[in-house]
Amino acid sequence: MHYPEPISKLIDSFMKLPGIGPKTAARLAFFVLSMKEDTVLDFAKALVEAKRNLSYCSICGHITDVDPCHICQDKQRDDTIICVVQTPKDVIALEKMRDYHGLYHVLHGAISPMDGIGPEDINVSPLLKRLQNERVQELILATNPTIEGEATAMYISRLVKPSGIRTTRIAHGLPVGGDLEYADEVTLSKALEGRREL
Amino acid sequence: MHYPEPISKLIDSFMKLPGIGPKTAARLAFFVLSMKEDTVLDFAKALVEAKRNLSYCSICGHITDVDPCHICQDKQRDDTIICVVQTPKDVIALEKMRDYHGLYHVLHGAISPMDGIGPEDINVSPLLKRLQNERVQELILATNPTIEGEATAMYISRLVKPSGIRTTRIAHGLPVGGDLEYADEVTLSKALEGRREL
Repeated sequence: MHYPEPISKLIDSFMKLPGIGPKTAARLAFFVLSMKEDTVLDFAKALVEAKRNLSYCSICGHITDVDPCHICQDKQRDDTIICVVQTPKDVIALEKMRDYHGLYHVLHGAISPMDGIGPEDINVSPLLKRLQNERVQELILATNPTIEGEATAMYISRLVKPSGIRTTRIAHGLPVGGDLEYADEVTLSKALEGRREL
Repeated sequence: MHYPEPISKLIDSFMKLPGIGPKTAARLAFFVLSMKEDTVLDFAKALVEAKRNLSYCSICGHITDVDPCHICQDKQRDDTIICVVQTPKDVIALEKMRDYHGLYHVLHGAISPMDGIGPEDINVSPLLKRLQNERVQELILATNPTIEGEATAMYISRLVKPSGIRTTRIAHGLPVGGDLEYADEVTLSKALEGRREL
């Protein structure tokens, strides 16, 4: 053992985080020693409270410290549109945009037969129940543009279409600021396919 | 505010660490939510305990959870040699080598007139006291091969020489596995200067 025990325990804890190897973990641990005690206590408290006080919204499945979450509770939001996403991080990315004022539904995953994840393993049936009870007119399928995300969007769209609710899929194409030269064939083909009159 | 408060507090804490920006902090915070509660509690405990239980050894200045530190307490070690380094991390790097069995002295910095750091701002005078009291025969100056490190080594060497204690400086040259072609001129010149008979 090269490190005193308290610091080697801290290094071990940092190493459990993604993308942090032994060298970075040691650097972070030594940095913690140089921080003010109050800041370290706040950090420890933030860790425990984030883990203990956060849960998933019983309506939309987004991560939240109150149930239902702030978005589901917000009377200002348009409850005729639900945007379906794979993870809580996607909700946050969409919220940062500040352009969307509807509700969300978080699937917590996507259908992936290769990994043994079927429709019953993701948060789909609560979505269908919401569609029955609420006055939803449009379902925006904003799952990732991957094989799994596409399959999930397709699956949900087929389930929902008979009920007469409009189902839409977010657009695929060149990212803004992207370079046509470096775009892959599939993206380019989607961009052409989705062209619009100017 | 896009994130629920407990998670945004955790993200803020992660962002105080070096090299961790808002995106990485968010990724780490979401990862913490997916960890087992016990693991998160251990992490929080490790943070607090590392900060509270670690201090500097009253003899050598190395970071430790007992005073004097394990190295100073170890009767097996050769107390006729002291290796002088800038930081506790340097002690750990040297200990990993497993070749050195003497004692250490951590300066906690180097003389740097540009930054207003003089000899009185680093851990030098306790070193001089150790040299008077202990039966030290050799002082290895293992400060970094930078301007500050060199100046510090030179300063200590001048102070100590009159007492008859042997002062040595670690070798400069090409790192093992390094490439002559890519070595800088100063390193090459030091490598030539320090050449030895085979």
